Amino acid sequence: MKALVYTGPEALEVREVPDPIAADGEVEVRVARVGICGSDMHAFLGHDERRPAPLILGHEASGLAGGRRVTVNPLVTCMTCPACLRGETNLCARRQIISMPPREGAFAGAVAMPERNLVDVPDHVTDAQAALAEPIACGWNGARSGIAAAGVADRALVLGGGAIGLGAALCLMAQGVGDVTVVEPNDMRRAFLDGHVQTAAKAPDGAFDVVVDAVGIDPTRAAASAAVRPGGAIVHIGLGGGQGGLDLRRITLQQIAFLGIYTYTAQDFRDTCAAMFDGRLGPLDWVEERPLTEGARAFADIRAGAVAAPKILLVP
Amino acid sequence: MKALVYTGPEALEVREVPDPIAADGEVEVRVARVGICGSDMHAFLGHDERRPAPLILGHEASGLAGGRRVTVNPLVTCMTCPACLRGETNLCARRQIISMPPREGAFAGAVAMPERNLVDVPDHVTDAQAALAEPIACGWNGARSGIAAAGVADRALVLGGGAIGLGAALCLMAQGVGDVTVVEPNDMRRAFLDGHVQTAAKAPDGAFDVVVDAVGIDPTRAAASAAVRPGGAIVHIGLGGGQGGLDLRRITLQQIAFLGIYTYTAQDFRDTCAAMFDGRLGPLDWVEERPLTEGARAFADIRAGAVAAPKILLVP
Repeated sequence: MKALVYTGPEALEVREVPDPIAADGEVEVRVARVGICGSDMHAFLGHDERRPAPLILGHEASGLAGGRRVTVNPLVTCMTCPACLRGETNLCARRQIISMPPREGAFAGAVAMPERNLVDVPDHVTDAQAALAEPIACGWNGARSGIAAAGVADRALVLGGGAIGLGAALCLMAQGVGDVTVVEPNDMRRAFLDGHVQTAAKAPDGAFDVVVDAVGIDPTRAAASAAVRPGGAIVHIGLGGGQGGLDLRRITLQQIAFLGIYTYTAQDFRDTCAAMFDGRLGPLDWVEERPLTEGARAFADIRAGAVAAPKILLVP
Repeated sequence: MKALVYTGPEALEVREVPDPIAADGEVEVRVARVGICGSDMHAFLGHDERRPAPLILGHEASGLAGGRRVTVNPLVTCMTCPACLRGETNLCARRQIISMPPREGAFAGAVAMPERNLVDVPDHVTDAQAALAEPIACGWNGARSGIAAAGVADRALVLGGGAIGLGAALCLMAQGVGDVTVVEPNDMRRAFLDGHVQTAAKAPDGAFDVVVDAVGIDPTRAAASAAVRPGGAIVHIGLGGGQGGLDLRRITLQQIAFLGIYTYTAQDFRDTCAAMFDGRLGPLDWVEERPLTEGARAFADIRAGAVAAPKILLVP
């Protein structure tokens, strides 16, 4: 099969590689669409020691498994540890994710997955839409956790209009938050988002029940600290870097919850798919498609901030 | 009446002042015992612009109100705003606390309080024990919030063996956490705590469901970040200062909740009193009593780290 292989910092090559070998309980998924995630970019730049070259990146896939159209939950968990038994599969100490050794990723013709990681896709949902389940599921978990911590959530702010931020905004609305605003400073990106969601170039005044930081850098943490209401929740999904920005005095005196969010539980993933399939998350048309063979160019364009759509999908 | 008046940075004077005037719905509480809190020390050092001199400090009081023995919830809230109506009285935007203008504190012969802020004290509970309700209620809220966020809580760590830390540890145990350890580096203080609670001079190895930071400085936040298990909760009650120490990458990748905790709701205060009165919080004998007239000396001793007991109570 063809694969887009990460061969070293800032280097991607299309190579012919052997098809994946499905272990017991696993099946081969022929990849139809696969998204480029911020964590793929992080690895591509050589900043993720958990993803050493050579490696096939990519973990946001839809495809065909034995004739079934499926979308893929890329987190492979043990199902036997205390966290898995509680349903907190994202906290499994033995968790694996495709695109991180020992598992190759989905920037390829096919990927091997445990059967239990697949969700069937109905006819009216396209492969492109189905490939969005993974990034949106992160926002589903973030919205669920933030709303629960805030107790009452009528008004939310999302910092960052990429796929994680937009997905979180759609999930907040689907979970009952009436007033959701996405802050996105990039004019091209913000213009693209208009019509999908309420946007702003900078954080509006006022106090928000839930603030999602889908960037995760010092300035967004500072903005989140200022914008959340007393007793509200900051949902920290982004991993932009740095250790500062939080106003710990305000967080303490105003009893604010700061929630680290990592991926999603298996139930979050299924709930996200159900919401996507019945239309609660909108038309899911905020993507741009490119051939897998032009993947290196896609990485370069994303890095240059020259992509309006929150998500590029590669087509093997 | 006599009062211990904060007259300027590092200055306290015993003065004769007029008795407090109880407004409509308020009663005069003759103070029997009143604790010295870290926030009183903060104000005494001139570091709290919300508490300008001259001012009577002190907000941890028990006493006599019209013949009834009572303990005092010092937070005066509006009872009509959305937060109060939700029961989140500690988030009331119009909240007041005695010892902060416009309300004088309880380092005095008497203090005026709304009737609804008083909890009756049964005969078998002493004035000294009753005066501990306020600091312990902070820990009750912290324990309740931390256990809820962690989901499962069998093992907890408390950083800091002052009244807030010890109170939080007792509340964690009363709320069902089987294994609770208090980390206290001061040998004299730790020796005093032995017998009341399991102690350690530094954080033991292992992963804890809930970590209470009852100090709130960069090193304790760093220790809390390292000690909490994936999916667990850090309860941040201390306001020691600084903005660093948190390991935001671990908090995010391991889905940890960092919870700012401010005081307690009116219900937390009542629940704390109920647990104190029926013995669930132990003998409550970890105090040292001194005359109000020697209050200045008590502040000096606390500042010098020369007090073994987690709490000094002043006796007017």
